[in-house]
Amino acid sequence: MSTNDPRVSDWWRTSIIEMRPGVIRFRGYAIEDLIGQAGFAQMIWLMTRGELPTDSQGRLLDAALMAGVDHGPQAPSIAIARMATTCGVGLNNAMASAVNVLGDVHGGAGEQAVEMFEDIAARQAAGASLENSVRGGLDTAIEQHGKFVAGFGHRFHPVDPRSPRLMQLVEEAATAGIVDGKFAAIGRAVERELAERKGGRRIPMNIDGATAVIYAELGFPAPLARGLFCLSRSVGILAHAWEQKQQGGRNKGPLPREYLWTYDGPAPRAVPQRDA
Amino acid sequence: MSTNDPRVSDWWRTSIIEMRPGVIRFRGYAIEDLIGQAGFAQMIWLMTRGELPTDSQGRLLDAALMAGVDHGPQAPSIAIARMATTCGVGLNNAMASAVNVLGDVHGGAGEQAVEMFEDIAARQAAGASLENSVRGGLDTAIEQHGKFVAGFGHRFHPVDPRSPRLMQLVEEAATAGIVDGKFAAIGRAVERELAERKGGRRIPMNIDGATAVIYAELGFPAPLARGLFCLSRSVGILAHAWEQKQQGGRNKGPLPREYLWTYDGPAPRAVPQRDA
Amino acid sequence: MSTNDPRVSDWWRTSIIEMRPGVIRFRGYAIEDLIGQAGFAQMIWLMTRGELPTDSQGRLLDAALMAGVDHGPQAPSIAIARMATTCGVGLNNAMASAVNVLGDVHGGAGEQAVEMFEDIAARQAAGASLENSVRGGLDTAIEQHGKFVAGFGHRFHPVDPRSPRLMQLVEEAATAGIVDGKFAAIGRAVERELAERKGGRRIPMNIDGATAVIYAELGFPAPLARGLFCLSRSVGILAHAWEQKQQGGRNKGPLPREYLWTYDGPAPRAVPQRDA
Amino acid sequence: MSTNDPRVSDWWRTSIIEMRPGVIRFRGYAIEDLIGQAGFAQMIWLMTRGELPTDSQGRLLDAALMAGVDHGPQAPSIAIARMATTCGVGLNNAMASAVNVLGDVHGGAGEQAVEMFEDIAARQAAGASLENSVRGGLDTAIEQHGKFVAGFGHRFHPVDPRSPRLMQLVEEAATAGIVDGKFAAIGRAVERELAERKGGRRIPMNIDGATAVIYAELGFPAPLARGLFCLSRSVGILAHAWEQKQQGGRNKGPLPREYLWTYDGPAPRAVPQRDA
Repeated sequence: MSTNDPRVSDWWRTSIIEMRPGVIRFRGYAIEDLIGQAGFAQMIWLMTRGELPTDSQGRLLDAALMAGVDHGPQAPSIAIARMATTCGVGLNNAMASAVNVLGDVHGGAGEQAVEMFEDIAARQAAGASLENSVRGGLDTAIEQHGKFVAGFGHRFHPVDPRSPRLMQLVEEAATAGIVDGKFAAIGRAVERELAERKGGRRIPMNIDGATAVIYAELGFPAPLARGLFCLSRSVGILAHAWEQKQQGGRNKGPLPREYLWTYDGPAPRAVPQRDA
Repeated sequence: MSTNDPRVSDWWRTSIIEMRPGVIRFRGYAIEDLIGQAGFAQMIWLMTRGELPTDSQGRLLDAALMAGVDHGPQAPSIAIARMATTCGVGLNNAMASAVNVLGDVHGGAGEQAVEMFEDIAARQAAGASLENSVRGGLDTAIEQHGKFVAGFGHRFHPVDPRSPRLMQLVEEAATAGIVDGKFAAIGRAVERELAERKGGRRIPMNIDGATAVIYAELGFPAPLARGLFCLSRSVGILAHAWEQKQQGGRNKGPLPREYLWTYDGPAPRAVPQRDA
Repeated sequence: MSTNDPRVSDWWRTSIIEMRPGVIRFRGYAIEDLIGQAGFAQMIWLMTRGELPTDSQGRLLDAALMAGVDHGPQAPSIAIARMATTCGVGLNNAMASAVNVLGDVHGGAGEQAVEMFEDIAARQAAGASLENSVRGGLDTAIEQHGKFVAGFGHRFHPVDPRSPRLMQLVEEAATAGIVDGKFAAIGRAVERELAERKGGRRIPMNIDGATAVIYAELGFPAPLARGLFCLSRSVGILAHAWEQKQQGGRNKGPLPREYLWTYDGPAPRAVPQRDA
Repeated sequence: MSTNDPRVSDWWRTSIIEMRPGVIRFRGYAIEDLIGQAGFAQMIWLMTRGELPTDSQGRLLDAALMAGVDHGPQAPSIAIARMATTCGVGLNNAMASAVNVLGDVHGGAGEQAVEMFEDIAARQAAGASLENSVRGGLDTAIEQHGKFVAGFGHRFHPVDPRSPRLMQLVEEAATAGIVDGKFAAIGRAVERELAERKGGRRIPMNIDGATAVIYAELGFPAPLARGLFCLSRSVGILAHAWEQKQQGGRNKGPLPREYLWTYDGPAPRAVPQRDA
């Protein structure tokens, strides 16, 4: 129609979705052709990457997504979802307050791990040995983000029960030629190097490390590791918000009501008279 | 340990997840047993419902989730994700600001449609005919939420291309005995009744109506229809935030920069002198 | 310029702010004239109401805003701000996750109280006595929102120390002719009626009730009572987020780390074999 | 009471607020003593800084807060508030989605400007001349954050009308001995240096620069500049959300409905057959 100013239409520009009345296409594929053909994990891939994965690639992504949905109500994201629910907001709002906190510390480990893995791979591609690449990559990561190496070690689990099983899936996929296996080898080598630096004490790969191996193997850029984790953890967030809704409660605080916090500020004092 | 006050532990109580060092179980299942066995959609079911679905049920849920991921950057949720990204916040924050707005009007249609379908089913169960149950259920829904019947009609698509294909999947599942088919029949009957009320003009089922049929067939309570939509739409939100990140831009407003809004307030005036 | 499509400019229409290069006017007042003349509370009034208040009105609004900034880290909004901060997000994000939960239960009491006060005033205006109006208004409020009457009673404070002082300010303002005093009288009468219904046990006005009296006296519509509370509580949210930032901590959960939640779900069980 | 585990109480520790039944104290001051004595801006200061300001300091903070409340619906924060409102969420939720995007690019300029001003002041304190300190501070800021120097220049206003008036207030306060004036001088010197680097073309101080001068003069640490901006902008966010609520509308997108975005992705294509 003549009323369409192209600069206005161009202000919102996308290669993800095309729409006309009665028509919805994602990356060129009609939605009615995708429904029943592409599963949810494959759709996540298509939307973020531009092309459909194979079924095998889709299954590996699916496993990474399903493995990280929840880590219990002591995780800030989950606790926030439950507290929010008792304040009289909708499930969408509870989910938002919770997903919002998946920041650098809570949700960024996967992103940082993929970055480190990619850095190590680049060192290898430039000719360094796996061991030297790992040493250099680790040093850089520690320099940037501190002594807690993203993707390795866990303050609660001696061995994170999700990691060995995920790594097994990656290695099966590598054997079957579905992925390269390069990042699985890097992940294992980082574990070895960390144990060596700690005099033999293992700091095993955690869920963030194992999913980072999968995301790197599947070619996802590092920032999407955080995005994918947000999708994954949203499931636990929803489940806990919903359970809390059914449990009831009003304005749930972090502690039982008879507990008060510790106050360590100034003693009682009088408000000074106003002056200029 | 003696230090554990049970009232404190009880303040956070859940039947979703059990943890001990090295152990994570969801609803009694060890996570390492679930990985590779239960797909993402099945995990969503387990987390929100308490039991695992069959593969066939899982596939139907999967289809409902993948079908609604995105409706383009004119949808407020998607536009907000893109604008947020250009303001210098993380993908998790952009997702949060966007999911947050999936409220009664933008994300609540599925919930309202499931409620109406359940109301109609309850009327049938109480002995009314399908036609009379539909009339009563429609009247109640319109009374509560206004003339736009949630799940039917679309301001852009004459026929929402997602609905016929989703309904086809439901009907195949009913034929195969995976679901009952009762809510599919109710959905069709609502369509017929609406057409009759409009003198023959069709107001066809939209994506919210079709997914509501699926959620109702699979036994999800109405509020979870909104929760599941939030999971689904989070995919499109992430994809658009990520695309915008790659396009760049700073503080993207809704319109090209040379456009200003229309101001219709008071004409310029002097600030009155202060008085009491 | 010819490129400006009026329909596009009209899509965003406001009577709050007018801008041209070098010019910013709020409700017709040039910002450079307002700066130094109108204080923050008066600006809040101008922005939400359209006209500037008198100094005295502005001071009463200011008192209501400053009184409700914080209720300690057991309040979900404050706890969320602190937890969010330890997850590696910005102050703006911590504030957003927290303000978001000021929903019907946590932040909506002021709104409900203003609604009830207005309902009572309308009954009076229609000729009923104060006592009968209060009885009718209370009954309606309890019918709509349940037995906890918004604005009265406190689960922690026998008498909320903020209320008597705020009511004193309102009554001084009424004596000075700055406000009418009608809603202060209504608030007092609700207290009396509640005590009578409880056989003499006082259920005194809390902060939400006292600020609702002020907002009603100043002519703010009920939904803005929630909005103003969001502005007020944002201060406490910011202060606690900032204090937590300085205290440090990573992924702060609701309880000390050695505490686990109580799990009351299914006992350990094997994942069933897949079937259709 | 014997049931109080100190480790639990210590997990939530604050020097901001002390509470006992019937008692609320902020930084040692009883709330009933503060009400009517300390204004909203002074309370913001007390909460974030630990001590009450003088009236004069409070007034300067108040001016910085009231000056930045709004920059119209083309600002992403304001547009998001309006769009959110039409999606069926509460004012608190609309405010949250909007405040959330006051990130590094949209809300972080004040923080960056204070950092730069402090860096320049530190160079002076170490013995460098004002001019050399400004050159060094500017170079560092540009190196860290790019060529747009936070606090200076505006893409819309040749001269931001808020800045000269705010600077006038600072200079009056310096003359009166309320503030030192050091940061005002630094701000002016940055303006001169930028003009020199641009061959005389002025890149005048904008609202972020002028408020950063005030916050630095008043001793606020840089991150609080962002926090204070969030408080300030929350007012405009609330006002626009409320105005939109009154205008009505459902699922307001960024553009009038007849506009579609530009799609530049793959042409229509068939979904490939599934394979491994």
